[in-house]
Amino acid sequence: MQQFDGKAISKQLRDELAEEVQQMVVEGHRPPHLAVILVGSNAASETYVNAKVKACKAIGYESSLLHFPPEISQTMLLNTIDELNENEDIDGFIVQLPLPDHIDSKTVIERVLPAKDVDGFHPINVGKMALGLDAFISATPGGIVELIKRYDIETEGKHCVVLGRSNIVGGPMSILMRRNTYPGNCTVTIAHSRTKNIKEVCKSADILIAAIGKPDYVTADMVKEGAVVIDVGINRVDDASRERGYRLTGDVAYAEVAEICSYITPVPGGVGPMTIAYLLNNTMIAARKRK
Amino acid sequence: MQQFDGKAISKQLRDELAEEVQQMVVEGHRPPHLAVILVGSNAASETYVNAKVKACKAIGYESSLLHFPPEISQTMLLNTIDELNENEDIDGFIVQLPLPDHIDSKTVIERVLPAKDVDGFHPINVGKMALGLDAFISATPGGIVELIKRYDIETEGKHCVVLGRSNIVGGPMSILMRRNTYPGNCTVTIAHSRTKNIKEVCKSADILIAAIGKPDYVTADMVKEGAVVIDVGINRVDDASRERGYRLTGDVAYAEVAEICSYITPVPGGVGPMTIAYLLNNTMIAARKRK
Repeated sequence: MQQFDGKAISKQLRDELAEEVQQMVVEGHRPPHLAVILVGSNAASETYVNAKVKACKAIGYESSLLHFPPEISQTMLLNTIDELNENEDIDGFIVQLPLPDHIDSKTVIERVLPAKDVDGFHPINVGKMALGLDAFISATPGGIVELIKRYDIETEGKHCVVLGRSNIVGGPMSILMRRNTYPGNCTVTIAHSRTKNIKEVCKSADILIAAIGKPDYVTADMVKEGAVVIDVGINRVDDASRERGYRLTGDVAYAEVAEICSYITPVPGGVGPMTIAYLLNNTMIAARKRK
Repeated sequence: MQQFDGKAISKQLRDELAEEVQQMVVEGHRPPHLAVILVGSNAASETYVNAKVKACKAIGYESSLLHFPPEISQTMLLNTIDELNENEDIDGFIVQLPLPDHIDSKTVIERVLPAKDVDGFHPINVGKMALGLDAFISATPGGIVELIKRYDIETEGKHCVVLGRSNIVGGPMSILMRRNTYPGNCTVTIAHSRTKNIKEVCKSADILIAAIGKPDYVTADMVKEGAVVIDVGINRVDDASRERGYRLTGDVAYAEVAEICSYITPVPGGVGPMTIAYLLNNTMIAARKRK
């Protein structure tokens, strides 16, 4: 069994981007600039947002954090988005979710200029991705595809089972893995909470992508020998033995599944680090178009 | 075995729409208006377009056929689209494909105002459909979903195998059948030309949707007893015994598969008639928003 080293691959990708930034600057262009909108003070959101800003700085991107109080009106938020859409100094921006209840996320997401939508959440980017057209692929699916690619995992004709049908992971992964390209050309099955015989379905997978949000859900008896296992879950499980009172675990029962699969992503250190790297990658894609 | 009677269900849907048109007119609104752009003189396209215009008239819709010579410039075509986008007398319009080589279909499709894109081909409609948002679902997938619904076919937890990954049928069907709604909640497998053990995959289907474009491809040994079989193929096969020199056949070897499945669509007379009816349905959806 080989571990996907998400940290190392994430670093590799970020190093490549840092090099490209230097090159851009040498050529007289400004570095890529990512703006992040944060509304309110959700602790997890603040952590994510800070990590994104820090990651930008580390590779020489410019970044702006626009932090608004939770009571900001939707109109005001939309106006801010309009300004960012028009601001030529910003290559891409994201609106950290979730938003407070009085703001309609759908309206907000659809206000972002598709060419600056580096989260890839705008329906037009989702649609273009589904149609196989040039589009921003959102960070988690994009990061997973990158991981598969850099480990040179064979995908053509393989049976890929995607566990979970969320708009953020399961849905796009099921589309990406069947595309007529590499990575892709898989026979893809998308399984979810309503799937019967889910164990059997998982066991038929050559490539299993678990994004169902249930800690240690995928057990060894659900995995084919030699399968490639990608664990997208990040679940907090109470753990009195840890100082912080919990540990992070994926959707896969790592220890037992690792015994039988050929490749597996650890949690943490697998898909997670790829996500931020891929957001940076999307920002570079946006910046390249500006040059 | 029961046959899906696409003709009858199509008529049912068109009758309902005709009734709604009458009601609209009684209430002092104008009837729905569909415009169709046709470029050049592809015989098949002319047939389709004429059928669409005729279907409009039959249920009291207004329709306009804009027929351009094959040498029309892309700019001129885009200008026409802009006019239709702005014309408040038109509820929806379609650009019949294929277009001549000097015109970029992608650019043309993306120029259509999403709110008038009753073909559902604009990436934003595809994306919204994928995200489970309100969107125009294109006519063939929409028609299939309607057929499943009106025959009250059980879908939840069923294994649906979609054969073919085209942007027009296989792709959207694989998304629609996994949605968290009825029809939907299927475990969906999308199989295609690169799928290994395709017979086995098809045989595991409770619902098999064949859209692979190969005449009589699905044979009895590929179908589970009692499966629901939907044949989207319309293939011309040489047949000297017919006056016109060919016959139409689907992707399913009808006679032998009909012996073992529970439901099956004939070709012609299954999915085909639903397609035009669903285009009319989309046009009504567009018109309702105008009222």
